[in-house]
Amino acid sequence: MQIEKSDKGWKSKLHEIIYEADTPMGKWFDIVLIFLIIISVILVMLESIKDIDAKYHNILLALEWVITIFFTIEYIARIICIKKPAHYIFSFYGIIDVLSTIPLYVSYILAGSQVLLAIRAFRLLRVFRILKLVRFLGEASQLKNALKASRAKITVFLFAVLIVSVILGSLMYIVEGEEAGFTSIPISIYWTIVTLTTVGYGDIAPITPQGQAIATIIMLVGYGIIAVPTGIVTVEFGKQTKNATSAKEGTYVHVNTQACTTCGKEGHRDDASHCYNCGSKL
Amino acid sequence: MQIEKSDKGWKSKLHEIIYEADTPMGKWFDIVLIFLIIISVILVMLESIKDIDAKYHNILLALEWVITIFFTIEYIARIICIKKPAHYIFSFYGIIDVLSTIPLYVSYILAGSQVLLAIRAFRLLRVFRILKLVRFLGEASQLKNALKASRAKITVFLFAVLIVSVILGSLMYIVEGEEAGFTSIPISIYWTIVTLTTVGYGDIAPITPQGQAIATIIMLVGYGIIAVPTGIVTVEFGKQTKNATSAKEGTYVHVNTQACTTCGKEGHRDDASHCYNCGSKL
Amino acid sequence: MQIEKSDKGWKSKLHEIIYEADTPMGKWFDIVLIFLIIISVILVMLESIKDIDAKYHNILLALEWVITIFFTIEYIARIICIKKPAHYIFSFYGIIDVLSTIPLYVSYILAGSQVLLAIRAFRLLRVFRILKLVRFLGEASQLKNALKASRAKITVFLFAVLIVSVILGSLMYIVEGEEAGFTSIPISIYWTIVTLTTVGYGDIAPITPQGQAIATIIMLVGYGIIAVPTGIVTVEFGKQTKNATSAKEGTYVHVNTQACTTCGKEGHRDDASHCYNCGSKL
Amino acid sequence: MQIEKSDKGWKSKLHEIIYEADTPMGKWFDIVLIFLIIISVILVMLESIKDIDAKYHNILLALEWVITIFFTIEYIARIICIKKPAHYIFSFYGIIDVLSTIPLYVSYILAGSQVLLAIRAFRLLRVFRILKLVRFLGEASQLKNALKASRAKITVFLFAVLIVSVILGSLMYIVEGEEAGFTSIPISIYWTIVTLTTVGYGDIAPITPQGQAIATIIMLVGYGIIAVPTGIVTVEFGKQTKNATSAKEGTYVHVNTQACTTCGKEGHRDDASHCYNCGSKL
Repeated sequence: MQIEKSDKGWKSKLHEIIYEADTPMGKWFDIVLIFLIIISVILVMLESIKDIDAKYHNILLALEWVITIFFTIEYIARIICIKKPAHYIFSFYGIIDVLSTIPLYVSYILAGSQVLLAIRAFRLLRVFRILKLVRFLGEASQLKNALKASRAKITVFLFAVLIVSVILGSLMYIVEGEEAGFTSIPISIYWTIVTLTTVGYGDIAPITPQGQAIATIIMLVGYGIIAVPTGIVTVEFGKQTKNATSAKEGTYVHVNTQACTTCGKEGHRDDASHCYNCGSKL
Repeated sequence: MQIEKSDKGWKSKLHEIIYEADTPMGKWFDIVLIFLIIISVILVMLESIKDIDAKYHNILLALEWVITIFFTIEYIARIICIKKPAHYIFSFYGIIDVLSTIPLYVSYILAGSQVLLAIRAFRLLRVFRILKLVRFLGEASQLKNALKASRAKITVFLFAVLIVSVILGSLMYIVEGEEAGFTSIPISIYWTIVTLTTVGYGDIAPITPQGQAIATIIMLVGYGIIAVPTGIVTVEFGKQTKNATSAKEGTYVHVNTQACTTCGKEGHRDDASHCYNCGSKL
Repeated sequence: MQIEKSDKGWKSKLHEIIYEADTPMGKWFDIVLIFLIIISVILVMLESIKDIDAKYHNILLALEWVITIFFTIEYIARIICIKKPAHYIFSFYGIIDVLSTIPLYVSYILAGSQVLLAIRAFRLLRVFRILKLVRFLGEASQLKNALKASRAKITVFLFAVLIVSVILGSLMYIVEGEEAGFTSIPISIYWTIVTLTTVGYGDIAPITPQGQAIATIIMLVGYGIIAVPTGIVTVEFGKQTKNATSAKEGTYVHVNTQACTTCGKEGHRDDASHCYNCGSKL
Repeated sequence: MQIEKSDKGWKSKLHEIIYEADTPMGKWFDIVLIFLIIISVILVMLESIKDIDAKYHNILLALEWVITIFFTIEYIARIICIKKPAHYIFSFYGIIDVLSTIPLYVSYILAGSQVLLAIRAFRLLRVFRILKLVRFLGEASQLKNALKASRAKITVFLFAVLIVSVILGSLMYIVEGEEAGFTSIPISIYWTIVTLTTVGYGDIAPITPQGQAIATIIMLVGYGIIAVPTGIVTVEFGKQTKNATSAKEGTYVHVNTQACTTCGKEGHRDDASHCYNCGSKL
């Protein structure tokens, strides 16, 4: 019985260190974790640079293993010390954690799976949670709400942009043809989106006068419609901010136009049963 | 008489299937139609890719014919089952439907008319109507209203941009000349719009110091005026949203946190003298 | 005396035709004028295209002379029929008119002055005035007011952007050097503005890792500050629109917090000498 | 004692000339200073252009020395005539002043330090202070406040953009590989940011269909999220402007066009019972 208790105590202690950041140990664990996440992302980048990988391959691989082992231990610890492991395993962070840990193991079976290591960058999102950046999270949630509220409008907008791109891309394919690089309709659509979004690589560019004329129209259209998502998000964002402000400043409720039968006053709360002015029943 | 009646019944049944989506049959018809529209757009794209067309030309052509025949039957059926065919034939969708059906037939008479098949992409707009995406349509109509309301302002703006482009394009033609690719005034105007809209292909770029100086000014102007359409649409869009909101929501008044001494209810109007819930004096 | 009178009548008749558009003759004159302006702009463009100029040089030159003579007559007529010629000569349109007429004459003295013909594009601005596009002019004036109101803010902004560009351009010159095309500080500043404004020609692009790192920062900064002019113009534009709306809806005046000594009412007009409530002297 | 007094007078006189701009001497000093700052920035630029430096090296160097000596004297004078030199030395302008003066001296010890001369551009910020551009400074501070208020939101946004860029960059590295120029993950991340911010140099561009498909998605995402910082800054800026307006303007009430029957004055409050001008009953 005593053993069970101490065991429970050991688990809850670990839980405190890993999942919380109120104790000194918990804070240290979080800082080390963030540090290792950043290191691991940098390692993946360095490995991808030929010159560096050629010179320091062994060191990089060794460091990779150190971090992978730490991440493995961390992942197992997270499962052990939580009461409902499934809750963690199938959470967003749980999936990111496992995906950013296994690639090195899998790389001995499947070549090329090491590239999955890049998923580790997702772990950087922990920074916000760990550093208790509540203020920042508040800001992010306001951003998220604004984007959520504009989702339907932006979907309609992107759908319309895609259809326009298909039409204009096909037109450019007919007008310009092979020479200018418009070798197929999908390529032309790709070019149309490159132009509409004002990216303009220049790897493909119209060379015939009529092609350049159409390109000019596409650019002006793109310039005009760049305003649309901005307008949508700005308006939504303005609303979000106003809501946040009014929530702070006081509460507002909806009132109806029902008039009191006794005093004739209007503007009662929807759930009012008595007149706020004379007190008679509504 | 009976025949006429059954004939009428058969027509109205077909009308229900083709033009409405409330019956199971009508829904199935719509889903099959959208599926075929998407397939037909993809077919046109695949045919434009040389490698794929070379390998699978016969399969693609066969599929093309299947879809064209289906579209033909659909078009005829739409005309038969509607009371006023002219109403449909000269509607936006009527014209799109015929334009996206005939090219394959015409391709036996006129070479190259197959490219018109790209018009099929317009049919994708049906998705909104068919899937009863009322919410999305509402959003789109709000977008449309905002764009409609800003039409006059954006026309003035685009006209001014065009005149500025003609002036600056001519200037660049004089300053840069042949070597840098500014071979004629229209080309220089094309380049000016590429720069003003921040697309910047780089196929033509100034090489003389004075040309680069003017280009810098054009870029800064473009950067500044990119704000204008955005400002216009945002303001109009804000108005549209406000109208929609106020139409939906009615009037709101400020309520305070004062609790009724009798019933304890909170949320009274600031000017309330009686509780809205129990009617006792506050 | 009679001659003088008829002369006066002839002048005022001409004035009506040229400067006004209320009579049928005035309308016809304006439509012909716009038509000729557009033709003359197109002529200048066509002449700049080598192939077309080589083939049709004589026709183009003849048409050029026809238009120049018409413009010359129009200019003289405008001076004759107005009471105060200086008023017209030194106006915006007066200067544009003379500048867009003389180049062909001057081209016989100075070679290359023909390029000034491009100034004719400015004449296109007449379209707005001639076609009595009052509604459009109203929109344009609203645009102009918004841009005027944001002038100070945008000047500060552009000045700051220029200083940042000088600093970052110098930095890139040091970091990248000759090979990547950063051959001098002015060129590097040019490149920095190309990047900051998200134009991105790609004629010059960083090739060293540290150069690409700085470029990344410049891009993100540019992406961030693209918001600033947009924000300025949107806010100003929103105010302009609101003003226009409130001007339509009724008048608002400023009231102060001075209380009436007799009845205690506040909210008097700044220029009030009596209380609006009880009528006693303030 | 008398000497000390005259010494004090001499110092305070110098202080007046250097730090203030109310006396004619002070104004002249400031104008000369701005002129020299601009000259010095132009000198640095000219020196960086090979052709110009080769021809006029000695003249440029001589001018450089003249300006450096003037700046040195100015710097010493600023320290002498101020009561608390440390206050100036460690201020923003103090540090800029020393950094923009010493490079020429240091260039005799360390080669290449001359490039630090570009820091002089910072001195241009003095223009605002010297020319007493209070109105402009007010505008700038409003800009600064708006940017300050949106700092947290923009930090969150840029952090999210960076993480997305790391993920997408890694993906493009895997998909495109060496041939298209995606030689390492950092290069791919650089390309992703070039695309996301719609700069689009085109020095690196996807060539495989799947790479172009991902690029299309990145562009559309970039096009969408370009709205986010704009939305943030616009909303914040709108708030700043509103605050500034309401602070300046007080309260406004609606007035009608009803004329007083006694004095004929218009513009009474809607709830007025007496004329605000003569006090007679309305």
